Amino acid sequence: MQSKYIGGLDIGGTKMAAVVANAEGPLARVTEQTAKTGTERAPGEQGVALLKAACEKAGVDFREIDTVGISSCGPFEKREGLITLVTPNICGGLAGNPGKLPNDWKSIPLESVLREHFKTVAIENDCVAALTAERAFGAAQGIANCAYVTWSTGIGFGLCVDGHLLRGKNGNAGHAGHMLLSEHSQAQCGCGNYGDVEALISGHNLQAQFGRSATELFNAARDGEAAAGKIVDAAASWFGRALYNVTAVLDIETFVIGGSVWQHHGDWLQERVMRELESRMPALTKGVSLLHPRLDSYVADIGALHLVMPAEWEAAWRDTQPWQTLANS
Amino acid sequence: MQSKYIGGLDIGGTKMAAVVANAEGPLARVTEQTAKTGTERAPGEQGVALLKAACEKAGVDFREIDTVGISSCGPFEKREGLITLVTPNICGGLAGNPGKLPNDWKSIPLESVLREHFKTVAIENDCVAALTAERAFGAAQGIANCAYVTWSTGIGFGLCVDGHLLRGKNGNAGHAGHMLLSEHSQAQCGCGNYGDVEALISGHNLQAQFGRSATELFNAARDGEAAAGKIVDAAASWFGRALYNVTAVLDIETFVIGGSVWQHHGDWLQERVMRELESRMPALTKGVSLLHPRLDSYVADIGALHLVMPAEWEAAWRDTQPWQTLANS
Repeated sequence: MQSKYIGGLDIGGTKMAAVVANAEGPLARVTEQTAKTGTERAPGEQGVALLKAACEKAGVDFREIDTVGISSCGPFEKREGLITLVTPNICGGLAGNPGKLPNDWKSIPLESVLREHFKTVAIENDCVAALTAERAFGAAQGIANCAYVTWSTGIGFGLCVDGHLLRGKNGNAGHAGHMLLSEHSQAQCGCGNYGDVEALISGHNLQAQFGRSATELFNAARDGEAAAGKIVDAAASWFGRALYNVTAVLDIETFVIGGSVWQHHGDWLQERVMRELESRMPALTKGVSLLHPRLDSYVADIGALHLVMPAEWEAAWRDTQPWQTLANS
Repeated sequence: MQSKYIGGLDIGGTKMAAVVANAEGPLARVTEQTAKTGTERAPGEQGVALLKAACEKAGVDFREIDTVGISSCGPFEKREGLITLVTPNICGGLAGNPGKLPNDWKSIPLESVLREHFKTVAIENDCVAALTAERAFGAAQGIANCAYVTWSTGIGFGLCVDGHLLRGKNGNAGHAGHMLLSEHSQAQCGCGNYGDVEALISGHNLQAQFGRSATELFNAARDGEAAAGKIVDAAASWFGRALYNVTAVLDIETFVIGGSVWQHHGDWLQERVMRELESRMPALTKGVSLLHPRLDSYVADIGALHLVMPAEWEAAWRDTQPWQTLANS
């Protein structure tokens, strides 16, 4: 029999959120700072505890949840067929900067810990989960060749070609933020790469390169400050080159672009990005469109839930857009 | 009823080949220089004529062929849902170099011309067709996340993720040879890009950059000539970066590498390419392997045929490897 309730987890480098839903929509949501101390099991156990707390808040018996979808930062590795997180901004043992994080973890046994409590566990990269949500309920409905892109602290992609969501050998398809674009740049990414997309233009790395936050830089550029304008023009060009490269590899037709940079500045950056994208290979780039997500800040929660949602719930959720209630939960 | 005979066309910028096959294997093959004069219909009509000639050679009634698979150079555009070729090295109107080609074509109505003669027509990019052949009969059997790469006059990719062959909105997925890798390079690709993979390392563009053919450069490097060694080392690094980028985007596990450069020099270049590839993002690159194709020079013909081959022929072809007979046809 189909579960009456499902759970969703959104695991980020900073914050973790749990949400419980039924056929009518999300019922309750709780969040915490992501656990970074104790054993490697801590984040997985925190996920279970947060789902318990969300159930309590919603007045749902936790034992009724046997199905959980997880939208998580990556990258992933598989250990004995189960997904572990090898995420440098949670695992101190991978951060390449001793003492930066309060642990020496090298991988987090996420799937195995969750499977101790739940029968069905589906884990996807956060941008892949976001793409499934935008395809089901948002801006990418009915578009067979599309990508979800986040331009925020980091840069991530979720990819769909010919109507198939791309996962890859360990569920790491979409790490296009770590494509190399520049051979001379001294900008370094958290992954160690010099000159990859994230090194060049992520919020974190703009701050590291120029000593000013992305918010400050993009606001100043929009307000006409020349120095910030030059930095932001270059960043928009790099972003356009990244979208061009993904278009060349996959013949994408639509990019749905989320993340704080695009949310606040997409409208005026769009022209610069499109100029870079459309200047090449017209057979591939002609007609490519850039769209805003329609699920806004709920995309990660709805993405996590959508990974395990019974198909018969979808039509009603498309009609009622019940994620709006999360704002009050 | 299933056709007793099928046809295959391999359309390249220089040469076109037609092959006719039945359940036992290919029966005959004919080739010509690709037509570049007359109307835009010329290459499509040449394909029909070559299939007729192949039938004649095989003693098959041409009217028995109603199903044809085509492996073609790209890129493609769709006109009223049918594939046209917009290929700068066949279409003079796109070559960006007036007088270089003896026509002013801007697109070639391939699918519509072929559909005047055949009921079933399947057209794929040549590297996509090659990948289907290597997945069915060659080195990529049973590998869900794999790519076919050619390093030759140009650079092309065919891509498969999660067992799905990637096509994209116009069948142009796999144009990763046109990914931008270098922001300062003056090397220009036939597509107009500066610093894309093909501009940097294709046989055609190595000749244009260094005034020596790829054959000469790679042979000299293998024989220890320092100047050639430096050029070839750089080319191998660029190739490794291209494979790394595709791995970051798609979480590929195996690259099957064809084309004349790798066929003759892959064995000693492999270590340099792998060094570049494996130096980054271990969660994605660990365990990635580079393989030689098993179908060798038959990969385009078998790729074209495989696009339309009845499923029940496959097992026998895997056993008997009947493409070997093409060598004598």
